[in-house]
Amino acid sequence: MSCSSEFLPRDYIGSVHNKKIKLIRTLNRKKTRQESGLFIAEGTSIVTMGISCDWIPQFILMSARTKKISRIRTELIRWARTHRVVCLQLSESVFEKIATRENPQDLLAVFVQRWCRPPQIITQSWIVLENVRDPGNLGTIIRTVDATGIGGIILVGSCCDPYTREAVRASMGSIFHVPLVRMERTAFLQWCRRWPGDVIGTHLSAREDFRQRYNAPVLLLMGSEGSGLSPNMVGACAQLVRIPMVEHIDSLNLAIAAALMIYELRREVLFF
Amino acid sequence: MSCSSEFLPRDYIGSVHNKKIKLIRTLNRKKTRQESGLFIAEGTSIVTMGISCDWIPQFILMSARTKKISRIRTELIRWARTHRVVCLQLSESVFEKIATRENPQDLLAVFVQRWCRPPQIITQSWIVLENVRDPGNLGTIIRTVDATGIGGIILVGSCCDPYTREAVRASMGSIFHVPLVRMERTAFLQWCRRWPGDVIGTHLSAREDFRQRYNAPVLLLMGSEGSGLSPNMVGACAQLVRIPMVEHIDSLNLAIAAALMIYELRREVLFF
Repeated sequence: MSCSSEFLPRDYIGSVHNKKIKLIRTLNRKKTRQESGLFIAEGTSIVTMGISCDWIPQFILMSARTKKISRIRTELIRWARTHRVVCLQLSESVFEKIATRENPQDLLAVFVQRWCRPPQIITQSWIVLENVRDPGNLGTIIRTVDATGIGGIILVGSCCDPYTREAVRASMGSIFHVPLVRMERTAFLQWCRRWPGDVIGTHLSAREDFRQRYNAPVLLLMGSEGSGLSPNMVGACAQLVRIPMVEHIDSLNLAIAAALMIYELRREVLFF
Repeated sequence: MSCSSEFLPRDYIGSVHNKKIKLIRTLNRKKTRQESGLFIAEGTSIVTMGISCDWIPQFILMSARTKKISRIRTELIRWARTHRVVCLQLSESVFEKIATRENPQDLLAVFVQRWCRPPQIITQSWIVLENVRDPGNLGTIIRTVDATGIGGIILVGSCCDPYTREAVRASMGSIFHVPLVRMERTAFLQWCRRWPGDVIGTHLSAREDFRQRYNAPVLLLMGSEGSGLSPNMVGACAQLVRIPMVEHIDSLNLAIAAALMIYELRREVLFF
């Protein structure tokens, strides 16, 4: 199969031994993502959302599978030419090798990760996640944070990587909007002492209901899917709250609990 | 490798050509699940939860990988013997062939699916999902429904299968607690006319905020991840509501939106 009319022959990749293809495959490993500082975003809508937020991709790869090139994709190719971003077409078989197996997209792009410093002038509420394990949960929380307009997310301890494909996809493009901070627990515990509003933690042993009036800006601390907040993090909270459930159930999905908490602390301000 | 002391030699499977192994592999297909009415539950905690809810598995399969047999697993083997449930040990390589790739468990069981009829005497709120596509979302919603103690879930139109491995796993065992009903849209639209409380739909075009006092029992209608409720389903709603978001965002994850709605309609009654 040859390249379509939108591409020059030199912009066509028909072999898995191409070095960009090799790079993409290594980016599925956390270590390579950390060392290179790169990540993969899949799907036309997520990639164009990144670009509209002024994230310039390192390069864009498209499958030759798509017979009819959509308007949005034509615009993307034009944008890439104008901004000197390499945009390549891949044979169907090569693209299959790098696409996600479930619900694969026809386009992906490689971007540089962005990590922020902890906020210095604090005006907004933030959420702090300790040792979160599931990238799907993390991506969904990023999406909820974006939808509610709170400040961002601080990842404490050994959290999963928000720049995995799964998290990026679950964020539905919100990965390009939401400030992400990484902190060691000790550094975080020192930093959070200066927090001007309520510091709240969710905990199964809490005796207070989560539906309260909180003093903004709120720093909301939530622990991992399995074991919850660690004792030191619990110690940093001025108040512990809990989401009620029926008797035989002891926990909710983390992304669900985070959304209920965030909507609760934004209850008095988030309207349309 | 031979079987461990808990198992007789005849209860050991070392070949992928065993008919139970073949059955397990075909149960990954929706068609086979529909025809056989069976499904797979993975992990000791989910399987024991099923048993504690009086679901008797057809058979149980364990990996020979686990060196140390846990107390809970020994009890499970004993329970199976007492209740004449076939419990087999698989060689590590055979078990790997049938286990989920991501975060695999060492144990799985096959159960018979249960589908309920639409509730006749209506005392509780229910949620209705139309054309839900993502099994992870559906499983998470099942878990939230269980945690909030509402009646159950009615699946309308071409929803994904709640008995996929992914949905069962995301439900964290709540699949064994929550009544599930399947209905054609036409039949549902007729049936729901008799609903005694509020019939509420979530819709992006709604002008009313979701934070209201609803008249219980509530029938809550929610549409698919992509396109929302179909016009006919919208027509069945007495009221349409919407969850507020900041301007540049147009939707939340479906399981998140469902949880916010369910906790809102249970706001006056769910405490600990």
